[in-house]
Amino acid sequence: MILTVTLNPALDVTYTVDAISAHATHRVRHVVSQPGGKGVNVARILHAVGEPVLVTGLLGGVTGAFVMTQLDAAGVPVSFVRIQGECRRTVTVVDAGEATGFWEPGPTVTPAEWGRFVEHYAALVRLARVVVLSGSLPTGLPADAYAVLIRTAAAHRVRTILDSSGEALWLGIAARPDIAKPDAEELAERLAATATVVSHPCIGDDDVGPARQVLRLGARAVVVSHGRRGLVGLTGDQAWRVAAPEAITGNAAGAGDACVAALARALHDGTPWPAPLADAVAMSAAAAGAPVAGVVDQDTYCRLRPYIAATAQAAT
Amino acid sequence: MILTVTLNPALDVTYTVDAISAHATHRVRHVVSQPGGKGVNVARILHAVGEPVLVTGLLGGVTGAFVMTQLDAAGVPVSFVRIQGECRRTVTVVDAGEATGFWEPGPTVTPAEWGRFVEHYAALVRLARVVVLSGSLPTGLPADAYAVLIRTAAAHRVRTILDSSGEALWLGIAARPDIAKPDAEELAERLAATATVVSHPCIGDDDVGPARQVLRLGARAVVVSHGRRGLVGLTGDQAWRVAAPEAITGNAAGAGDACVAALARALHDGTPWPAPLADAVAMSAAAAGAPVAGVVDQDTYCRLRPYIAATAQAAT
Repeated sequence: MILTVTLNPALDVTYTVDAISAHATHRVRHVVSQPGGKGVNVARILHAVGEPVLVTGLLGGVTGAFVMTQLDAAGVPVSFVRIQGECRRTVTVVDAGEATGFWEPGPTVTPAEWGRFVEHYAALVRLARVVVLSGSLPTGLPADAYAVLIRTAAAHRVRTILDSSGEALWLGIAARPDIAKPDAEELAERLAATATVVSHPCIGDDDVGPARQVLRLGARAVVVSHGRRGLVGLTGDQAWRVAAPEAITGNAAGAGDACVAALARALHDGTPWPAPLADAVAMSAAAAGAPVAGVVDQDTYCRLRPYIAATAQAAT
Repeated sequence: MILTVTLNPALDVTYTVDAISAHATHRVRHVVSQPGGKGVNVARILHAVGEPVLVTGLLGGVTGAFVMTQLDAAGVPVSFVRIQGECRRTVTVVDAGEATGFWEPGPTVTPAEWGRFVEHYAALVRLARVVVLSGSLPTGLPADAYAVLIRTAAAHRVRTILDSSGEALWLGIAARPDIAKPDAEELAERLAATATVVSHPCIGDDDVGPARQVLRLGARAVVVSHGRRGLVGLTGDQAWRVAAPEAITGNAAGAGDACVAALARALHDGTPWPAPLADAVAMSAAAAGAPVAGVVDQDTYCRLRPYIAATAQAAT
């Protein structure tokens, strides 16, 4: 079973309006509300492709109850820890294909609630083969929350994938996840900021070099997403690059979650490298065309998959 | 008891952001969610000033359940008819004092649901002395919905106040409500559109004349709100004007609901004209300063009330 952890889930609300204009009143033509947060989206994709999955995390308030109801209705198994704070909403207003976003701040989690989650997680992790840790941390959690959860999984020989940003990502990487999945921008920003403390500066290939730093910081494998350009994957001393089919455009958030879902499936099934990387690119491409995250177009996936392959890169 | 009817209630969500910009993503600094819809706001004000009130209407979905929970928590008695459709939300994004609004379309009500409401209302109306009918009609209701409810109230000798717009207002006025409360813009628009069918064109005073047309169309009394300028009130052959104190600026929607609340209280207590008009202006002024509708600042009300009086106008 694949356990996905979403510590800051959301209700993603999409409004369609004719044309957005600051300081005016708009009639919303169409409303779509769906469960969100990276881990929830990964779980929805895994469930859709028939993988055994369980969703956990922290969830509160009336919006949280609605998220739970919708996941139940979709048949996705959930086991959240309830918190006092209200689950955040994201409101995306779409006009003529362009999006204007409003992100609620989300709840503040108390130390007692975090303590209850750590206990709950320790029980669930024994049932899992792979744990996916995705997304931002809500206010109130320790910055090393993902590191704590990765160490618990490792103690039970459960594999881990980490997809986050900022301190939560970098402290998590130090706890040695099986796969870290930063995006190229996050990596560039961090490595520039810590250039003075990196003992081995990047040598050679522009993309493989920075990714290798992530291995040095603790991750057992790293997959760096370069958006429309594709992926770079490294494990041990092997490196691969996978070009994206030219068709990848659209929903970048959805594509990232589909990439993680593919990697989780491969880790769960023991698929040897580099096949998971090609699969991740095909899944991303098949998700990017959907208007909302957490959905993969199976036909697109099946059509593209045979044409995508990983290319070995020189070790640096 | 005052029964307020809200056929299209809402959850009013207010977001505070630093500066709104089309096609960008915004971190919401502050979120406030509260029950809305004109009738609900009128009831909250009446409850706050100690009047016996009961809220009814049509309410559905998870958002509807949240609205109910919040009214319960505020101690406002409710007796809604549950419907299948999801209660609408309004999202108002505030930056530097300016507001950008997004109004969800709201549910579609089935004929069976409307039938259940009409029955439920007929039972509640026997307990009431005054019925307040406020706001827009949701999709699926007959345009003469307010006319039906006004006739039912009249059959039980229960007094009615109608505050709506468009066809719902004008068909309702034909059913002879005790007070109709159109705003000046609505009146100007309608009278211009129907100029050819009005047998007695306006004569004399610019503001009293159009208001008198509303009496001719069926209302027993009419109160026309002129926003910051104040009110014009007519009943039988008497007419009054009440100037607003110079301080009235701000929340126009909140001011309108406070005006209706004051008129409902006066009708309930049998306060003779024109005192209700002066009271309505004081209540509006005391509500206009609040950032959200449904709230009246009691200190402002008490400070302003002694200085506000109605001035008799020449009959036209």
